[in-house]
Formats: sequence, C-alpha cells, structure tokens
Amino acid sequence: MTEEEWQSLKTFVIDKFTNDPFVRDMDIKVESVEPKRAVFSLDVKHNRSNMFGIVHGGVLMTLADVGMGAACFSCNKKVVTLEANMSFLRSAPVGKHLIATGSVLHNGNRTLSCECDITDDEGRLCARGRGTFFVVGRIQEER
Amino acid sequence: MTEEEWQSLKTFVIDKFTNDPFVRDMDIKVESVEPKRAVFSLDVKHNRSNMFGIVHGGVLMTLADVGMGAACFSCNKKVVTLEANMSFLRSAPVGKHLIATGSVLHNGNRTLSCECDITDDEGRLCARGRGTFFVVGRIQEER
Amino acid sequence: MTEEEWQSLKTFVIDKFTNDPFVRDMDIKVESVEPKRAVFSLDVKHNRSNMFGIVHGGVLMTLADVGMGAACFSCNKKVVTLEANMSFLRSAPVGKHLIATGSVLHNGNRTLSCECDITDDEGRLCARGRGTFFVVGRIQEER
Amino acid sequence: MTEEEWQSLKTFVIDKFTNDPFVRDMDIKVESVEPKRAVFSLDVKHNRSNMFGIVHGGVLMTLADVGMGAACFSCNKKVVTLEANMSFLRSAPVGKHLIATGSVLHNGNRTLSCECDITDDEGRLCARGRGTFFVVGRIQEER
Repeated sequence: MTEEEWQSLKTFVIDKFTNDPFVRDMDIKVESVEPKRAVFSLDVKHNRSNMFGIVHGGVLMTLADVGMGAACFSCNKKVVTLEANMSFLRSAPVGKHLIATGSVLHNGNRTLSCECDITDDEGRLCARGRGTFFVVGRIQEER
Repeated sequence: MTEEEWQSLKTFVIDKFTNDPFVRDMDIKVESVEPKRAVFSLDVKHNRSNMFGIVHGGVLMTLADVGMGAACFSCNKKVVTLEANMSFLRSAPVGKHLIATGSVLHNGNRTLSCECDITDDEGRLCARGRGTFFVVGRIQEER
Repeated sequence: MTEEEWQSLKTFVIDKFTNDPFVRDMDIKVESVEPKRAVFSLDVKHNRSNMFGIVHGGVLMTLADVGMGAACFSCNKKVVTLEANMSFLRSAPVGKHLIATGSVLHNGNRTLSCECDITDDEGRLCARGRGTFFVVGRIQEER
Repeated sequence: MTEEEWQSLKTFVIDKFTNDPFVRDMDIKVESVEPKRAVFSLDVKHNRSNMFGIVHGGVLMTLADVGMGAACFSCNKKVVTLEANMSFLRSAPVGKHLIATGSVLHNGNRTLSCECDITDDEGRLCARGRGTFFVVGRIQEER
C-alpha cells in the first residue's frame, strides 16, 4: 500500500466511524487510526453510567467493539463482529475520560482476532476485551 | 421469601432498571421480572444501528448486560459484572423489535453465572451471551 | 443429503473423532452424532482431576471443543476452532460420568457458532461453553 | 510478605502444580513462578494433537487454565476457575515446544482476572486466553 493509499484508507475509516449512527449518538470520539490499531475516547457522563454511578458495562463493550472494528478496517477489511468478550477490571466513575485502544492480534483473509484495552485518565486498565471479526469485503481494491 | 417480599423485590428491580441512566437513555424497556429471569425490549432505531444499517453490537451487549444483571437482582442480589461474552448469530436491521431474556444459570452466594438470549420479532435468535456477576450486597435482608 | 449420504457422513465423523489422537488419549467416547449435534462422554478418573479432586477445567474445555467440533462436522463442514469460552457451574468429583452435548447455533458457509453443555450422572449442568468455528473444507461434495 | 515467606509460597505452588494429577498426565512442566506470574511448557507430541496434526485446542485451554491458576496461587490465593476463554491465533504442529505465561490482571480479595499467552519456539503468539478465578482460601496466613 502506498502512502497515498494509506491516507485515503485512513480517511475512509475515520469518516465511517465518526458517522456511524450509534457511535455518534454515544459521543465516542476517534482519536487516531494507525495500521492494525485504532484509538477512541469517551467522557463518562451521567447518561453513560449505571445505578452505581460508574460507566455502564454496555458502554465499555461498545467502546471495545468500535475500537476493534476500526482496527480491522485499518487493515483494509470491512468486518462484522462474530463474537466478543470483556473482563471488567476497574470501575470508572462519572467524570472519567476513557481511552479505548483496539489492536489486531491476527489479520487473516477471512477472519481477524482483535483486542481492546480501555484505560482511564491515569492510564489504569479498566477493561480488556477480545473479539473475532468476519471479513465481508475490502475497502480499497488490492493490487 | 413471602409473596409480599417478592412483590417488593420485583418493584425494586423494575424501578432500579427503569431509572438506570444508561438504560433509560438507550430506550430499553422492562418487559417482565420473574425469579431468576428478566426480560427487556428495544426497538432498533437508526441511532442504535451501525454503518451497515443493523443493530450495533454494543447495543446487543448492553441489552444482555441489563437482562442478566436484572436476573441477578431478582435473586435478591446486587451485582456488578465481572465479565461477559456474546456470539452474534443473526443481524437485526433497523425497524426490528428485540427481546432480551436474561436468566440465571448458577445462583451462588458470591458470584452468579447468567445467560441472555436476544430474539427478533419472529422469535429468531440474534445473539446469545453469557456473563459472571459478583455479589456486592443483598437488596432485602435475608431472615 | 440422502439418507445414504448422511450415514456415510456420520460414519466419517465418528471415525475421525474416535481416532483423533488427543480424544483417544483422553478416553473421551463418542455417544451419538446427529445433524447439528454430537454427544460425547467421559469418566472422571484421578488422572483427569485437579488438586481439589474434581475434574480439571482443561478436561471440560476439551470435551466442549470436541462436542462442538463434531457437531460442525455433522453439518458436512471440516472446521478449526477460532475461539471458545466456558462457564464452570458445578464441580464434578472423581467418579462422575460426564455427558457433553455439542450443538450448532448458527450454521454459516464460512463460520459456525456452537454451544456445548456438560452434565453429570444426575443431569445437572456442570459447564456451558460456546465457540466459533472456521470452515476449512467440506467432507462430502455438495451437489 | 518476607523473602522467606515468598520462597515457601513459591515452593508450595510449584509442588501443587507439579503434582496436580491432570497436569502431570499431560506432561505440562513448571518453568517458573514469580509474583502474579507463572510459566509452564509443553512439547506437542502426537497424543496431544488433533486430526490435523496440530496441537489440540483442549491442550491449549488446559495450558492456559494451569498458567492462570498458578499465577493466582502466586498471589497467595487458592482459586477455582469461574470462566475462561481463548482465541486461537496460530496453529502449532507436532514437534513444537510451547510456553504458556499466565499473569494476573486484577488481584481482588474474592476474584482475580488473569490472562495467558501461549507462544511457540519462535516466540510467535499461538493463543491468548483470559479467565476469572474465585478465591476459596489463602495458602499462607496473612498477618
């Protein structure tokens, strides 16, 4: 892939995830997209929390799905999620700023395995997830 | 537990999950709460979908977390999620009405194992998840 | 698939799993193979237990991998495991006879999602697992 | 914990896992035990492989369960496995020497979250697993 192709791919990925309806509704922001890696962020507001005043598990799983999906897209692969899991390691109360870093562990032709770490303002690991993604197409033509 | 205690517990669970900030923001509705079982529903609107026009994986994982958590609460246990997983089996496009049924597989003193099935209008299984929950307290005093 | 083709496929699956080196070494027995479903059994002996005198988690995960894999094969698909998970619900001490029932939840062209329940002599659920399988080929030619 | 107490704990963990009936039967070797971390190894022989001539998924899940369990023990906690998952990233054929490194991600009083990486002779990641463990007791008295 030429540098020009990569820039075009990167722009596509950022646009797609910025305009993804649910991602936008959740106020999840794209921070960066690199080959095999994508970073997103979220401010934990009241309407993203649960009855304990901490970020809802569903929000963390959403962040991970988004981070891992975009990491797959950065490999020039359009994917859907086959399965995902997450361990919740530390609670993040309202007011925290979360960073989700999705990365590709295995970049196969048909399926990809990814991981996502979610950390808080102090860099502490709040959740770690993994998932398997199915390739439904390429974004740019391969040559 | 007397019938009266159960009705009081059930009311508590329905209130807690109806007023959970993220659940409310997501327009997830409580359908029913029974011992070891809780049912929620969601209409798949545009802002709950992804770039493919189908319900976002994060929405399904949120539904499952809510369904399983409420099923734990119905066992008189306040819980937090330790971990969760989900297999995505069938996509649900915008317009579908989803039903999430959370149930308790193992009701331990300290941890519970739960499952959640998400079905569409035609009763077809769209996703199945499982999770482990940690007991942080009782809702009603045990006698 | 004709009845004759099914019988031929079934014989192939039973042979393959009976002669799988690790399955044989573990004394895992084929009980039955039906379309989308395969049942295996294991006697919990001392050398399959852990320091607590109960069946080792690795044995249960092996049983599930075998049960789910054979269920995929019964759909005329040769598969490898992409990922698997298991919740441990009830311990099975040495002396128990375990039944693992693998079933196919989603039978796709490229990937399958499966589940496996492991029960003891009294039919109580000891473990439930799920997995995603990747199709590497067909067993019989499709027509 | 004094150095003497750590040495005593480490000896206990190595003994327990060396003599665990299934671990011994599988020819899984203890390589090292450090605080929050335990390393085991396995030679992939024919009787640990599947019909494709590669290490059986059940063997890898066993290795991970052992590595993560011993990592918990190294934190002075006797544990049982609540749940575990694994992604299979690269197949390891007969003849490979595998290293499983279990580590503790969250060391709670009641539950621990762990991870295990399994690499081959060339240091390539073959599988990554995660699990949740329940504390059933302490090994040494805390003071």
